[in-house]
Amino acid sequence: MLAEAVGTALLLIGVVGSGIMAERLSPGDEGLQLLQNAAATAGVLFAIILMMSPVSGAHFNPVVTVADWALGGLQARSVAPYVAAQVVGAVLGTVLANLMFDLDAVAWSSKDRSAGHLWLGEVIATFGLITLIFALVRAGRARYVASAVAAYIGGAYYFTSSTSFANPAVTVGRMFSDTFAGIEPSSAPMFIVMQIVGLGVALLLIRYLYPKNKPEEHSVS
Amino acid sequence: MLAEAVGTALLLIGVVGSGIMAERLSPGDEGLQLLQNAAATAGVLFAIILMMSPVSGAHFNPVVTVADWALGGLQARSVAPYVAAQVVGAVLGTVLANLMFDLDAVAWSSKDRSAGHLWLGEVIATFGLITLIFALVRAGRARYVASAVAAYIGGAYYFTSSTSFANPAVTVGRMFSDTFAGIEPSSAPMFIVMQIVGLGVALLLIRYLYPKNKPEEHSVS
Amino acid sequence: MLAEAVGTALLLIGVVGSGIMAERLSPGDEGLQLLQNAAATAGVLFAIILMMSPVSGAHFNPVVTVADWALGGLQARSVAPYVAAQVVGAVLGTVLANLMFDLDAVAWSSKDRSAGHLWLGEVIATFGLITLIFALVRAGRARYVASAVAAYIGGAYYFTSSTSFANPAVTVGRMFSDTFAGIEPSSAPMFIVMQIVGLGVALLLIRYLYPKNKPEEHSVS
Amino acid sequence: MLAEAVGTALLLIGVVGSGIMAERLSPGDEGLQLLQNAAATAGVLFAIILMMSPVSGAHFNPVVTVADWALGGLQARSVAPYVAAQVVGAVLGTVLANLMFDLDAVAWSSKDRSAGHLWLGEVIATFGLITLIFALVRAGRARYVASAVAAYIGGAYYFTSSTSFANPAVTVGRMFSDTFAGIEPSSAPMFIVMQIVGLGVALLLIRYLYPKNKPEEHSVS
Repeated sequence: MLAEAVGTALLLIGVVGSGIMAERLSPGDEGLQLLQNAAATAGVLFAIILMMSPVSGAHFNPVVTVADWALGGLQARSVAPYVAAQVVGAVLGTVLANLMFDLDAVAWSSKDRSAGHLWLGEVIATFGLITLIFALVRAGRARYVASAVAAYIGGAYYFTSSTSFANPAVTVGRMFSDTFAGIEPSSAPMFIVMQIVGLGVALLLIRYLYPKNKPEEHSVS
Repeated sequence: MLAEAVGTALLLIGVVGSGIMAERLSPGDEGLQLLQNAAATAGVLFAIILMMSPVSGAHFNPVVTVADWALGGLQARSVAPYVAAQVVGAVLGTVLANLMFDLDAVAWSSKDRSAGHLWLGEVIATFGLITLIFALVRAGRARYVASAVAAYIGGAYYFTSSTSFANPAVTVGRMFSDTFAGIEPSSAPMFIVMQIVGLGVALLLIRYLYPKNKPEEHSVS
Repeated sequence: MLAEAVGTALLLIGVVGSGIMAERLSPGDEGLQLLQNAAATAGVLFAIILMMSPVSGAHFNPVVTVADWALGGLQARSVAPYVAAQVVGAVLGTVLANLMFDLDAVAWSSKDRSAGHLWLGEVIATFGLITLIFALVRAGRARYVASAVAAYIGGAYYFTSSTSFANPAVTVGRMFSDTFAGIEPSSAPMFIVMQIVGLGVALLLIRYLYPKNKPEEHSVS
Repeated sequence: MLAEAVGTALLLIGVVGSGIMAERLSPGDEGLQLLQNAAATAGVLFAIILMMSPVSGAHFNPVVTVADWALGGLQARSVAPYVAAQVVGAVLGTVLANLMFDLDAVAWSSKDRSAGHLWLGEVIATFGLITLIFALVRAGRARYVASAVAAYIGGAYYFTSSTSFANPAVTVGRMFSDTFAGIEPSSAPMFIVMQIVGLGVALLLIRYLYPKNKPEEHSVS
């Protein structure tokens, strides 16, 4: 639980902190801001997945935790504590990012992210993320999860219209910072609903393409 | 087939979607647009090749499929279904990218890409891509394909004048979006012809440099 | 010792040199400067850790050396010579960077970096770095240190308000260049104190999450 | 020989082509131009080293070829043909890059790169490159050469004042294009002399730090 909370906190520090930094250093150039934000997020994701995977599996994301349970990995009784740790970590990370950049510890975001095409973006972003992770895990190639997730999310910041939240805990955390990476609390519930829809589609595809778990290939992870 | 279609759809979502995003966020700075487009494409390529390679080989590209057949991998009767799945996936992905960014589902591109020096670019881009993939496969190092192809294409967006389509399915898909990554339908046929020329040169070189298939080195892929 | 000195010199050449280059080429766009600086630093870190790890462990950082000793790796009598070599290398590297860009060999930095929120940034940056390295080492996955540290620091340049020095030797070295990456000598002591605080928190977490050393997984380093 | 020539040609296409593209797309922003050039060069380097290393060792660089001979790898009689193939490939690649971007096949560069501090840059750049490659090779970790060289050169474009040619064949090739990446013929000889100096220093260090060759670690290359 501690690993999930610390990892998710570092993830939000990465996402929110780099958003604030980019916004301050490159005012008026949104493309350059997102590039900096995406690169920093990819870097921190790669690092924290490697850091925590031997302890907790390095989910940092409730839809990953639910998918792991649905596909026979995690036990049912661990789901709720995982999700709780992730949400607590996400809020804590956002608060630390705010403080690190000399802002109020908590400021509700006023960034409206509410539109049908953004919701489609979240469905696709989450669908791709869950399919990727469990395609690797079920083919016995979990050792690629850190690099593949980092590359995917770095790209998905751009190729989805919603800039790819794809994570309910991150969505909650990002309500607490009125900066580049924020999301207005009223926009958050539909984002989370769409992430769950993406999860559902991914589970169907995974069961079809990778019907069985293959044991991890000999060594190397 | 489903793996090829889904993977190619994700590839086009990556290419077209990130192009639209970059164009909107960094208007007037084409270099910065292409940098964002190239980085996002490299990220999604790395992820989808890892995602689908145990199922279909993760071609997502008719010239790769034809090369695999020509070099004794894929069976002849699988070529047509592979190509069909790739083209369907490419069009579907472009439509989803359009919708995700609140555009009409289909809009023919008006981006003229028709000139001799661009055609030379496509020959070189495709030659390099096919040589790279099958040099790795035939030396028993297929585990490097995902990272090497992502790095190569990310670079080739810049070092070829045509921004390196190097893929007939992608070329078809990109006709359907009148945005950054689009290609006018009348420019597409010559691009595809040049990709086939690049494929031919690559096959000659591969057979000379790597005359035999080496089995995959023990473990790790 | 020579390996630590040469490696740390190359690290400072990387950090300070790329800062000067970025500042000259992109005047007035601080976000673009930091992006170039972060990317170059990540590249050089990956290379030098791979270059020197079989010889000295590739610390290049006094807090890493102290953590290695505290966790039962390095012998006590090696700590002081390691730190001395790192500091000498850091100063030498900064001098070479200055000379390479046609500046005076030594110029005290006048860049004030003194504020509570920056100190919090250094605590978090160092905490994450030390936790990452020893999470990998103690899980028998030291082979990931080079890529993970490069990705983490590349990201941390953005997500920490202090741009993530996270290294007392680097902090000392950067006093000697009055350029982009510099730090005013009067700001340096508190940065180093905060790095030690981050080290302390990281050691507590590491001992809790990874109580035992696991031998390196079979092969592949 | 063919592998060395094709690989070096692709390298120059990568370096010169991406330089032209960046210069055209981002006029007036030299930092952004170099960032695009560095990223594309790193991508192509990673790909071509993986592509050709089982055939020729993937040197693409006369100082690497000489170092390999000096350290007991390559036989003396292979050195001259290697270097010849590299130079021919470099010129051919530059010509193709010029043609691909609709320029005259050959145009002597008028870019003066002649100053003491740039020479120091070439010494350091070449020293680091050779030390890196043979530190990996002699520690039995040649499998890291592709990624480490790509990361190092991507960084060294920034942290050396000369933008890190570090390769006599590349230096010759770049005389043939009057574009971003060019070098005036009169500046080339001193660059090559300085690369040889860097090679000499690197050989001394390598022999000291890595006195013996270690066989490649079991598997995984």
